[in-house]
Amino acid sequence: MTLGDRYGAHRVLEPTGALPQAARRLDNASRPFDNEIGLQVSALHITSTSFQRLWREADQEPERMAEAITRIVAERGKFQDPVTGSGGVLLGTVDFVGPALRDGLDLSPGERIASLVSLALTPLRLEHVGRIYPATGQVEVKGYAVLFESGLWARLPSDLPESLALLALDVAGAPGYAAKNVRAGQRVLVVGGGKAGLLILHEARKRVGVTGQVILVEMDQARCQTVLSLGLADVVITADATHALEVARQVVQATGGALADLSFNCASLPGTEMATILSTRDEGEIFFFGMATDFSRAALGAEGAGKPVRMVIGNGYTPGHAELALQILRENQPLRSFLNSLLPP
Amino acid sequence: MTLGDRYGAHRVLEPTGALPQAARRLDNASRPFDNEIGLQVSALHITSTSFQRLWREADQEPERMAEAITRIVAERGKFQDPVTGSGGVLLGTVDFVGPALRDGLDLSPGERIASLVSLALTPLRLEHVGRIYPATGQVEVKGYAVLFESGLWARLPSDLPESLALLALDVAGAPGYAAKNVRAGQRVLVVGGGKAGLLILHEARKRVGVTGQVILVEMDQARCQTVLSLGLADVVITADATHALEVARQVVQATGGALADLSFNCASLPGTEMATILSTRDEGEIFFFGMATDFSRAALGAEGAGKPVRMVIGNGYTPGHAELALQILRENQPLRSFLNSLLPP
Repeated sequence: MTLGDRYGAHRVLEPTGALPQAARRLDNASRPFDNEIGLQVSALHITSTSFQRLWREADQEPERMAEAITRIVAERGKFQDPVTGSGGVLLGTVDFVGPALRDGLDLSPGERIASLVSLALTPLRLEHVGRIYPATGQVEVKGYAVLFESGLWARLPSDLPESLALLALDVAGAPGYAAKNVRAGQRVLVVGGGKAGLLILHEARKRVGVTGQVILVEMDQARCQTVLSLGLADVVITADATHALEVARQVVQATGGALADLSFNCASLPGTEMATILSTRDEGEIFFFGMATDFSRAALGAEGAGKPVRMVIGNGYTPGHAELALQILRENQPLRSFLNSLLPP
Repeated sequence: MTLGDRYGAHRVLEPTGALPQAARRLDNASRPFDNEIGLQVSALHITSTSFQRLWREADQEPERMAEAITRIVAERGKFQDPVTGSGGVLLGTVDFVGPALRDGLDLSPGERIASLVSLALTPLRLEHVGRIYPATGQVEVKGYAVLFESGLWARLPSDLPESLALLALDVAGAPGYAAKNVRAGQRVLVVGGGKAGLLILHEARKRVGVTGQVILVEMDQARCQTVLSLGLADVVITADATHALEVARQVVQATGGALADLSFNCASLPGTEMATILSTRDEGEIFFFGMATDFSRAALGAEGAGKPVRMVIGNGYTPGHAELALQILRENQPLRSFLNSLLPP
């Protein structure tokens, strides 16, 4: 047996001692170790910020975009935007399952899976870059990737379209936290009604039950309308969450002064920490999933307002998150149809 | 009764709708409202980063430093470094206690208190700037300040020197979280042996008891020696916490592979998130108190390593934190002597 480091440190070519995410270059040539999974890769899903940046730089020309992707992967042994540092996830067919992998026992060559760890730390080599879908950031490729022992993956379900499943898997941590933390009778606040917010709303509405209350704060009118028509929230507040006092005033009103027991921040824009903090009751809990969250703005903001709230850094991984997220698509047909409508035909 | 906003929004002169911390200018002239506290201010304790910046800019000349402080307060109606955005805390004598303040019922004019919310959001006017102590960032002043209804403060204890009490109050949130979260028999990791780290170590050592284990990771040899001689940790690992794999390897060794149940990150330098994440067991909990913590590095790092850890943004306020922090100084005479040695004579 040849075993690699659990976190992939054995694949780091430079700098020495770094972890794969921080590495400048990974070994993408060695065959999979006995605690790794090898994948024939069919598509990359590049994160929105990186895709948009590269797409602009390529003047929206697919050929130049393909060249840029090819060059990055050739140079780094992984797809990681050198400017933003972010990557994405991939879809592939299992080629090899290391015999030393406990979690891989029920996985076989030929199965379709999605990686749930970032491309920014995944060894990858590309033979070919095919069609590019700017609406979703999907890029068809032919290549080979390796997942480490610690690497997360999810089997693509046979009853759901791959691109729809991937959309849910991409934000699975957020509804996973909702599923594990929301209790009957609670008041739950969700800031931001994007994909993660919608999946959280479904879990929260289901779990608070008839004695609870689910509130969405979202500035986009169309999104608010969608949530109302899907019946995902009891109260929808159309407001800009960077206006902390105004949002808090409306949450006070909606909750009869009680404020939220649990809050989920999924805002994509910065500056929404204070609205969330002031809208949550003393000794309540806030889960920050928006990547625009600023650590010191949250820490100093809560202290400055004398608010004893428990603030959690949303971890993209919580055990079972993939199954929980996919199950939402099966449970809620109207939500599934809506999410499907966001995908290209 | 004239009541101001609980969070001080009524004192914001510009921009409209902002909270005091984000405001460019506060009203420092109006007399205290009936839900405010008025203070005769005797000293400012400017946060280290801001003090050092201004001190350099003033070429270490006390007179120029005094001018800079005077100018900032005159322009903004509060002391907030325009570059770093941070402030500090103040010491003062109570002049007025608003009759509408529930929490102020046991506070009387003439008592000595410290503010526990940042100067960056505290209305202040200065008549005079006196002696400046570069070692601690203390500045003697004569002035007047106002605390809002939400503003935190602590009575200065009669049995402790003011500057020593302030040193503990300044980082009180961290040991407060330790006091509330550490249980008997746990393995507790502390990253960073500065003031906050030392107070946490005391609480953790006391609470884990004979069946628990307390581990410090600190790169400074002298600090490690201090912690050993004070008996504050069972294991001291002298290592640079930006080297995640090396630190995790040593924590694996120290815990017989079990890793930490609870970890506290109080590192002052950036890049120590991964060492803390990899050193904490699955389903364990991490409290980040270091202001160098990066939200996305923590969130994406834990996901990338497939680590289901619960990560908390350390809130500088948790109820009772001031009493808990001061009590440590009374309980641990050797630690108190050591902290006292950090202060100027």
